[in-house]
Amino acid sequence: MKQPTTWPRLNLAAGPVQVTDKTLRDAGRPILYHYDPAFIELFARTSGLLQEVFRTSYDVVIMQGEAILGLEAAAAGLLSPGDKVLNLVSGVFGKWFEDFIHKYGGETIELAVPYNDAIDPEDVRRALHANPGVKFLSVVHSETPSGTHNPVQAIGAIAHEFGVLTMVDTVSGLGAELLSPEEWGMDIAIAGPQKCLGGTPGLSLMTISPAGWEALQDRKPEPLRASFLSILDWKSAWLEGKRFPYTPSVSEMYSLESVLDQTLAVGMERFVDRQQTIARACREGVKALGLELWPAREEIAAACVTAVRVPEGIDDAELRGTMRHRYGVMISPGYGELQGQLFRLGHMGPAQAHPTTLAAQLAILERSLCDLGFPIQLGAGVGAAMAALGGWDDEGHG
Amino acid sequence: MKQPTTWPRLNLAAGPVQVTDKTLRDAGRPILYHYDPAFIELFARTSGLLQEVFRTSYDVVIMQGEAILGLEAAAAGLLSPGDKVLNLVSGVFGKWFEDFIHKYGGETIELAVPYNDAIDPEDVRRALHANPGVKFLSVVHSETPSGTHNPVQAIGAIAHEFGVLTMVDTVSGLGAELLSPEEWGMDIAIAGPQKCLGGTPGLSLMTISPAGWEALQDRKPEPLRASFLSILDWKSAWLEGKRFPYTPSVSEMYSLESVLDQTLAVGMERFVDRQQTIARACREGVKALGLELWPAREEIAAACVTAVRVPEGIDDAELRGTMRHRYGVMISPGYGELQGQLFRLGHMGPAQAHPTTLAAQLAILERSLCDLGFPIQLGAGVGAAMAALGGWDDEGHG
Amino acid sequence: MKQPTTWPRLNLAAGPVQVTDKTLRDAGRPILYHYDPAFIELFARTSGLLQEVFRTSYDVVIMQGEAILGLEAAAAGLLSPGDKVLNLVSGVFGKWFEDFIHKYGGETIELAVPYNDAIDPEDVRRALHANPGVKFLSVVHSETPSGTHNPVQAIGAIAHEFGVLTMVDTVSGLGAELLSPEEWGMDIAIAGPQKCLGGTPGLSLMTISPAGWEALQDRKPEPLRASFLSILDWKSAWLEGKRFPYTPSVSEMYSLESVLDQTLAVGMERFVDRQQTIARACREGVKALGLELWPAREEIAAACVTAVRVPEGIDDAELRGTMRHRYGVMISPGYGELQGQLFRLGHMGPAQAHPTTLAAQLAILERSLCDLGFPIQLGAGVGAAMAALGGWDDEGHG
Amino acid sequence: MKQPTTWPRLNLAAGPVQVTDKTLRDAGRPILYHYDPAFIELFARTSGLLQEVFRTSYDVVIMQGEAILGLEAAAAGLLSPGDKVLNLVSGVFGKWFEDFIHKYGGETIELAVPYNDAIDPEDVRRALHANPGVKFLSVVHSETPSGTHNPVQAIGAIAHEFGVLTMVDTVSGLGAELLSPEEWGMDIAIAGPQKCLGGTPGLSLMTISPAGWEALQDRKPEPLRASFLSILDWKSAWLEGKRFPYTPSVSEMYSLESVLDQTLAVGMERFVDRQQTIARACREGVKALGLELWPAREEIAAACVTAVRVPEGIDDAELRGTMRHRYGVMISPGYGELQGQLFRLGHMGPAQAHPTTLAAQLAILERSLCDLGFPIQLGAGVGAAMAALGGWDDEGHG
Repeated sequence: MKQPTTWPRLNLAAGPVQVTDKTLRDAGRPILYHYDPAFIELFARTSGLLQEVFRTSYDVVIMQGEAILGLEAAAAGLLSPGDKVLNLVSGVFGKWFEDFIHKYGGETIELAVPYNDAIDPEDVRRALHANPGVKFLSVVHSETPSGTHNPVQAIGAIAHEFGVLTMVDTVSGLGAELLSPEEWGMDIAIAGPQKCLGGTPGLSLMTISPAGWEALQDRKPEPLRASFLSILDWKSAWLEGKRFPYTPSVSEMYSLESVLDQTLAVGMERFVDRQQTIARACREGVKALGLELWPAREEIAAACVTAVRVPEGIDDAELRGTMRHRYGVMISPGYGELQGQLFRLGHMGPAQAHPTTLAAQLAILERSLCDLGFPIQLGAGVGAAMAALGGWDDEGHG
Repeated sequence: MKQPTTWPRLNLAAGPVQVTDKTLRDAGRPILYHYDPAFIELFARTSGLLQEVFRTSYDVVIMQGEAILGLEAAAAGLLSPGDKVLNLVSGVFGKWFEDFIHKYGGETIELAVPYNDAIDPEDVRRALHANPGVKFLSVVHSETPSGTHNPVQAIGAIAHEFGVLTMVDTVSGLGAELLSPEEWGMDIAIAGPQKCLGGTPGLSLMTISPAGWEALQDRKPEPLRASFLSILDWKSAWLEGKRFPYTPSVSEMYSLESVLDQTLAVGMERFVDRQQTIARACREGVKALGLELWPAREEIAAACVTAVRVPEGIDDAELRGTMRHRYGVMISPGYGELQGQLFRLGHMGPAQAHPTTLAAQLAILERSLCDLGFPIQLGAGVGAAMAALGGWDDEGHG
Repeated sequence: MKQPTTWPRLNLAAGPVQVTDKTLRDAGRPILYHYDPAFIELFARTSGLLQEVFRTSYDVVIMQGEAILGLEAAAAGLLSPGDKVLNLVSGVFGKWFEDFIHKYGGETIELAVPYNDAIDPEDVRRALHANPGVKFLSVVHSETPSGTHNPVQAIGAIAHEFGVLTMVDTVSGLGAELLSPEEWGMDIAIAGPQKCLGGTPGLSLMTISPAGWEALQDRKPEPLRASFLSILDWKSAWLEGKRFPYTPSVSEMYSLESVLDQTLAVGMERFVDRQQTIARACREGVKALGLELWPAREEIAAACVTAVRVPEGIDDAELRGTMRHRYGVMISPGYGELQGQLFRLGHMGPAQAHPTTLAAQLAILERSLCDLGFPIQLGAGVGAAMAALGGWDDEGHG
Repeated sequence: MKQPTTWPRLNLAAGPVQVTDKTLRDAGRPILYHYDPAFIELFARTSGLLQEVFRTSYDVVIMQGEAILGLEAAAAGLLSPGDKVLNLVSGVFGKWFEDFIHKYGGETIELAVPYNDAIDPEDVRRALHANPGVKFLSVVHSETPSGTHNPVQAIGAIAHEFGVLTMVDTVSGLGAELLSPEEWGMDIAIAGPQKCLGGTPGLSLMTISPAGWEALQDRKPEPLRASFLSILDWKSAWLEGKRFPYTPSVSEMYSLESVLDQTLAVGMERFVDRQQTIARACREGVKALGLELWPAREEIAAACVTAVRVPEGIDDAELRGTMRHRYGVMISPGYGELQGQLFRLGHMGPAQAHPTTLAAQLAILERSLCDLGFPIQLGAGVGAAMAALGGWDDEGHG
């Protein structure tokens, strides 16, 4: 019989990411019936924690499928036939959202930039001026496939100036920047636990503004109800009646509660700062190896992953395979049409975003590049990254 | 601050149910990236195990949301506008499926019986004779809310005689009877891990016959694709390309693999026999207490839960509350329109369906009835149940 | 290959006992270096919790081997050649302690009663009057093999009247009665985590009075030091210097911390009351089956296990084997010279001492007696036990 | 309230060491009664696995306390008054063993070298020539405090030439070299699970040669029995009767079984090779940083830890504190009289001895040295270590 593949030492992929041992232990609590009073309490408490992590007083909804469910649910629930949506495209995920818009009857006006760039808010303003009938704007906050992020705060403000509602894919954005739905003008935002929060996949974490709820109710020909895709089902069942539209994923809720507790124990400002500090150090490491960052400018580089252009003479799959099979480090390839052009170093969540893990990741990248004959100085990347981490302090609050 | 509710000692609800300690441990393996070769292997292996548990060579699809996702996906994927569906209704879940049929453009012909009864296959034959345009038949195998089951094997055979495709909700049926999609004529069957298999909630376990695949492809105006609801996405992504249409719930897959391994280690025949033996013993216990079974006849009583009519003079919520809060035993109420009329004693999966657990459940039921002033002889129910368990053998294969 | 034995559903033995799922999760925290500041904190915190559970301000010492280590360490550390010890013997463990006394140079005066009886404090007074040279008194608080307990509080008071130091084996006594070393006159007391506290085996939990420390220092020809058996090593290393005489069992300390936290969350009075209530109910169940309790009088029956005389015509091993192999319930036989004469039903700690578990245990005892042809009415024992549990309240503080 | 200390990210101490997630999960199996047939099987199976890991057909004994128990038990069990022991001293542990020898009535002839050196087998020969009455030889295989190892194979052969029995402390040696009690002439060998096997602390892993058993039986004035320190108790109870002299540490046995399974899955040759490869790479890293290895020559450097001389101008405690508190990496100081002179980088067992972990460790060492103003080039150590790991292969068998 074929020997099963050895599991990796480090899962430094673009999500699902490795999680802390505490998360795994907490996820392993005994399975409760969803109408057990203890589970109702836990679900309510977790919803409250999620509001704190989102830094919002908007309602939160936790849909019971990974974030793409929330994204589809937003399109399916908001769009009436013929609705005009300004869809901002700076990467694979932004482009893909167009499919949901069309599927659910919307019409798109696209504002696109190359997939290593970010949207300029002034272009958004221009596009909204030029298209007065636009009802919704959709934007990906953190384009995980490109390792870039868009200036959602500025974009949200402009959209609201024009009375346009925003749908924000912040799947890998929550925890990477100090966002706030109210301050950033996010009407419907969808995040994932398995990205920068460092949780397990299987849930969509959503906030909905009052205007967002109104739009869901006003959808034509009728509000979307009685479906796995219905956000309104969660409003009437859970928010209004502490009931569930269907059986929630009990273990995933345990895991989420734990992850949110851990996040808030660090504090949102410090949590985000750690993410960004590690991302910055990672970029320093990459550059010191003579590799090229994929994002056009460092200011738009995301905190979730560092996307690196595959250097000439190196086969991306061979590089990742060497890292994974010889040294036990799993990283992510390019995604969709970016496949083969870049690879991505992960640093999302408390189990990935730490100096020890970053050092290990860069060292194995170096070792593997060396194995494939790419000319680098072993240690150069790690050294540069460490140089950027001088102020790190696990215990303190620096 | 309010003290959090104490967790129950025994979750003997109608699902999600308590799981074995091994399941929890296996579910707690580190989170893999879904494209890690080890995860691809695990997903493939688990799919193979699921075929064995379903006793089928049909394709299996594991959708990444609890079973209602699979049910909606079946309706959404199969039904073209105007399709006639013979919907068999013997309980709350059967009735509810009508909503999905209508939502996705189907027309229903209903064959209904009271919610404590089961469908007579001969009535199905009559209905199909009377309605020659019927394209699909939908049936709930095990009506968890009523604690009854329908004779799916006979119904499936009749449907196929008429060239009618079947959609079978066997959410709590898999593991309760020795079914086989091929032999029972199940074209699309949907099961849940959190019922008789004793797993965790969050997945839909599906088998699809060749005719089922054809029907999914033939749906008008076009096949359902690029949606969380699309079964075909799983065919082209996973079955044909070992890729995923979106991020799977990694921990739930670990849990499922473990549960299927445990099930097959017992062996399907013995596994099902244990379920049925415990259910039978439970009914003996209930009757010995002078309580009335909800199902009209014992032959149609389900193996998953034993539904018991709430006796006169007892408030259902008070009874369950006493069991839960004073003695730590969680059972389920009636559901939907059955609420208040019955309560349900759970015995699904290896952690519920065992003489020790049944004895505990009945003893606490007795103790609680007594607390509420209902005249019973303490020990009578447990004694009758134990009398029915003479041949039990944990180690042997009896 | 031989199939491995199926694990039991319920470990209702006389210790090690089954533990709560929380204990197992907490025990599974990552292994710390023993000089990690986090471990030093945990060890100190756990010692403080242990004082609360012992209800003492005496020093506590946690020796890193199961309770027999603490018992031997007490004898080895206290006794100088020729020291006279009044050894109270009401069971196997009391008798065995004589070996340690002799091994370490002591001379014993024995005060013995049959192994189903308890020591009368007035006999202790008489013995001390008659033997003025006695320096130490040794007594087993809870004789697990006999399911009896001795009146340590009265005995300790008498010993102190005579200026005699006490060595108390309360291995299964801590958690079973509301003891206090100060109020009960216990100079050196040794408990085990794996008995009424419901923890894991591998540690000796000890309290030492100031007079106890003095005696350890005064031992001739010299204090016992530099040995795995030395209690003084723990004083100079841990108590005085927050260092360890050798590597502690890290996981067992995690487990202990968790168990003590859980105990104190219940509260000592309520914790002990629950133990005693379940023990009383168990005895009612046993008597209702026409079986005979092993202890001569119920007042001396222990709260840890219920010892039951093996009824005529029943083979003890066959009975226990039936319970274990057919129904998955592990109970304990008689021990030492009591083997074959009695069996023991366990109800120690939060995972054993609960109405649900007691019901299961008695039901399986009944079922197994029935399998072996012993004439009982199935359910009678469970019913009588449940009748005795009317005031139980998991949530409340009744 | 004071915030509890944050737990470290990496426990890279000299033992107890961090363990694999599988070990923690397996250790978390439910607690069995020690006389449960499933536990008897597990204990027997684990003993068999231990023989394989020791590569021996000698009896193995698993004493239920950390390795110092086994060491004291060997001295206590073997030595008769006046027995002459050639005690080899190349470090703190070797010197300490003298205390046990004297405590249990032996007389020592010491053969010592500086604590950064190893014993020369020819000196052993000379010493045995010069001291014809020597009955035992005691030697520490791997001196964890010094990071050195002694040539036990050659020493054992010489001892046997002279008819001298050997007591070998291989606490951190098992798993570090491809030893064999038979081939290396080890009569009583004591290892620990928490060192190179990467297990949890709390057990002594011992092998005893037939001559060793004989010596234990021949001890004067009588064999050591009925004590926590008695090895013979294990022979008569477990080896001859499948009974236990006292309650074993159930969870630690689960952990040990898991650890041995994992070790044998790798294979002893490859397991040892990995240890040595990582140790070699670690030394390269240390040297590249301009630091000095503590061992006098690299040939005698141990595979368990790399001992590094504290460089001038650096305060050892400050360095370790920086690594631990700022970057979450716990390493060990010097021990006993070596404290302050050296620090130790750990690489024991599968969770420590891996390129990723080594890279992280060296990077944090570099970062911390830099924080303290020590002049190094960041990345130099990691680079040199990685350069030494070219042939590493997690999946393969290289």
